[in-house]
Amino acid sequence: MFPKDGRTTLTVDDIPKKWYNIAADIGSPEILNPATMKPVTAADLAPVFCKTSVDQELDTTHRFIDIPDPVREAYAQFGRVTPLQRAYHLEQYLKTPAKIYFKREDVSPTGSHKLNSAIAQAYYNKRDGTEHLTTETGAGQWGSALSLSCNYFDLDVIIFMVKVSFEQKPFRRSIMETYGGTVYPSPSPVTEYGKSVLAKDPAYGGTLGTAITEAVEMAVKDPTGKTKYSLGSVANHVCMHQTVIGQELIAQMDELDIIPDHMVGCIGGGSNFAGFAFPMIERKLRGKVDTSFLAVEPTEVPSLTKGEYRYDFGDSGCITPMFKMYTLGHDFTPNAVHAGGLRYHGMNPLVSELYHNKTINAVSYNETQIFQAAVTFARTEGIIPAPESSHAIRGAIELALDAKKMNEEKTIVFNLSGHGLLDMVGYANFLKTCNHPMIEV
Amino acid sequence: MFPKDGRTTLTVDDIPKKWYNIAADIGSPEILNPATMKPVTAADLAPVFCKTSVDQELDTTHRFIDIPDPVREAYAQFGRVTPLQRAYHLEQYLKTPAKIYFKREDVSPTGSHKLNSAIAQAYYNKRDGTEHLTTETGAGQWGSALSLSCNYFDLDVIIFMVKVSFEQKPFRRSIMETYGGTVYPSPSPVTEYGKSVLAKDPAYGGTLGTAITEAVEMAVKDPTGKTKYSLGSVANHVCMHQTVIGQELIAQMDELDIIPDHMVGCIGGGSNFAGFAFPMIERKLRGKVDTSFLAVEPTEVPSLTKGEYRYDFGDSGCITPMFKMYTLGHDFTPNAVHAGGLRYHGMNPLVSELYHNKTINAVSYNETQIFQAAVTFARTEGIIPAPESSHAIRGAIELALDAKKMNEEKTIVFNLSGHGLLDMVGYANFLKTCNHPMIEV
Repeated sequence: MFPKDGRTTLTVDDIPKKWYNIAADIGSPEILNPATMKPVTAADLAPVFCKTSVDQELDTTHRFIDIPDPVREAYAQFGRVTPLQRAYHLEQYLKTPAKIYFKREDVSPTGSHKLNSAIAQAYYNKRDGTEHLTTETGAGQWGSALSLSCNYFDLDVIIFMVKVSFEQKPFRRSIMETYGGTVYPSPSPVTEYGKSVLAKDPAYGGTLGTAITEAVEMAVKDPTGKTKYSLGSVANHVCMHQTVIGQELIAQMDELDIIPDHMVGCIGGGSNFAGFAFPMIERKLRGKVDTSFLAVEPTEVPSLTKGEYRYDFGDSGCITPMFKMYTLGHDFTPNAVHAGGLRYHGMNPLVSELYHNKTINAVSYNETQIFQAAVTFARTEGIIPAPESSHAIRGAIELALDAKKMNEEKTIVFNLSGHGLLDMVGYANFLKTCNHPMIEV
Repeated sequence: MFPKDGRTTLTVDDIPKKWYNIAADIGSPEILNPATMKPVTAADLAPVFCKTSVDQELDTTHRFIDIPDPVREAYAQFGRVTPLQRAYHLEQYLKTPAKIYFKREDVSPTGSHKLNSAIAQAYYNKRDGTEHLTTETGAGQWGSALSLSCNYFDLDVIIFMVKVSFEQKPFRRSIMETYGGTVYPSPSPVTEYGKSVLAKDPAYGGTLGTAITEAVEMAVKDPTGKTKYSLGSVANHVCMHQTVIGQELIAQMDELDIIPDHMVGCIGGGSNFAGFAFPMIERKLRGKVDTSFLAVEPTEVPSLTKGEYRYDFGDSGCITPMFKMYTLGHDFTPNAVHAGGLRYHGMNPLVSELYHNKTINAVSYNETQIFQAAVTFARTEGIIPAPESSHAIRGAIELALDAKKMNEEKTIVFNLSGHGLLDMVGYANFLKTCNHPMIEV
């Protein structure tokens, strides 16, 4: 009765014991200090991040880094190992010979993959003596995850939420507050940079870049050194924490005897894509698999498909170091798309490098195409996906339709990075205006 | 590292194969036809429900009823077996010697236990020739579940949503529409009863009783007989469908070698409480366990603790049959509490009978007490619970604090009937006004 190839038997004991640090295999371009244009040192980064985060960010030698037991326990508490599920009903609807699987990062209590790094960063900050942690959040997924994690490890947290999301997604703010976080809309009047932006344009809706500047400013200006900053994507150490996704996935696919032809993830700053894909890319680099990797971004924020590969700041206010990455420019202000988690001007340097050397591919879709994929997935598999994750769904569906045209039994795996239960404003707007809410086949 | 007694290994193969029909063990008071005050017949109910629902509603002879394979497959698709989890962090916070477990009905894609009956009813209606299904919904949990289920089995669905919830929870409406359902606020202008209510008071916020009248009216007035009505709680067959919860729970507790001292559920119409408790009550009736059962209701809607045990209508418009039950009167209009799913004037007759003969106990808590329990649970276990389910959490916490006073290592199991991600308005209001958001210990 129940087909087995969409179910694995992994348990909490199978939660990975190490993170995979792909920088040790492919190298990572130096991060530059904009004042000197020389590579940053650990001392340069010390006012911003806690010591362990700095060490991990600059580590290009250790291929694997132990996951501390308290972090693994928190992973277990909050739902890891996450399921790998086969999308039988989506396959049937598409009438495709392709097999479609998805990794369910939506099952975390904060609704996305973001907890994987939030738990690690909260743990290290607590251990390294931080008392207050600052951060930015776009759609609110990262802020929710860090609030829960800081509550779990007993740390104070201050979150700068991009104002356009703050207003579009008021319930995300309530979630952060329920977990005990303090939330400001960014630009805010509580930092010098925020004040300067508001002075120019009081109605400015903000960007992740602006929120990052505010959060970093608040950390570095604390004379006690007990306030540190935490980043939810883009940085190498954040991407490394996310590799629990891809490692679990490989164990699950090995158990089910699957080798994917295609792996698809959405991409903003790069962390969910990196965590999902890097462990399999490692296999590909060693010649063990021939999987292709597809990153899907919004046409409104096309950092890979339309950006330039060069050094740029990580924030709008130019107070972060400079990263070699695909960028739309640190002053780029995207439209207020509902996939707020993907509204970032740059891209993780390792992902950028892998895209530049053609290890991974990228494609972009517009908001209508994304919500069509979202509704198609909701009506077939029952799960309401995040608009961000729906980029991956659209990418996977297009590959499945290609397989249908070619009559090839391809295996496609995508990362369902989060659910969309707090994105119903976007769904409501889409349903109101669109006569064909599903992808037609 | 990972304690084992909060984890079980049940898989889709362990999804129950039969529902438990407690009416065959304890009998059920006759349902009366108000026109004749004689017991209803299957023919009386035929214009309202599909044939199988009628048969199941009146069945007091079969102790177990087979779950059809397509229903079990849908249960598997949508996340059954649901986890049984131990609330270690809540226990630590309360400093109680009690062990607290919770059954996670929140993991369903529609966020509550309601799918258990929605899937069954959609399947039977499709099989019995129904083309359009009507229903009521309070908080929107039932409407979401029935929309997804009707989409799954290819049926049209029309939902009357209590107006106060329609306005308080606009995103629930979008979820139903995402799944393809049609939603009207109740009272609505599309039924005679709705029109009559609106004529008296255009601003009336509605009740479940009003919405039921509208949905039943639309079904019985279809001359083709292809429109039927579906109920989300209160009826015996709905409670029976929910017994998958309690049966799984018993298998999980047997595996972990646990016998609960207390089982706690929230209660509105009675279906989640019944599904959770009836299978263990069966064990108690056979003298196998000495578990106590606690139903928790809102002080604003105290049907068990303040209601009368007598025959009453199931709806406000007096077009349903009469049920022997604890009732606040079919014209009772509760305040607009955030636990919209518990705003019902009556109570399932079997639960009523078990309460009347003291097999189960009941207690009520007010909204502040409920949200304190909700925030306490969110900050310890990481999961944001539905306001409805938070009644069960409050009940479980009070029992755990009693156990602490007596220094007794009691085992307490509660049903987490749903998550609260779509109830953040209630959380936001509470956090704004409450200086002590957690239960202090």
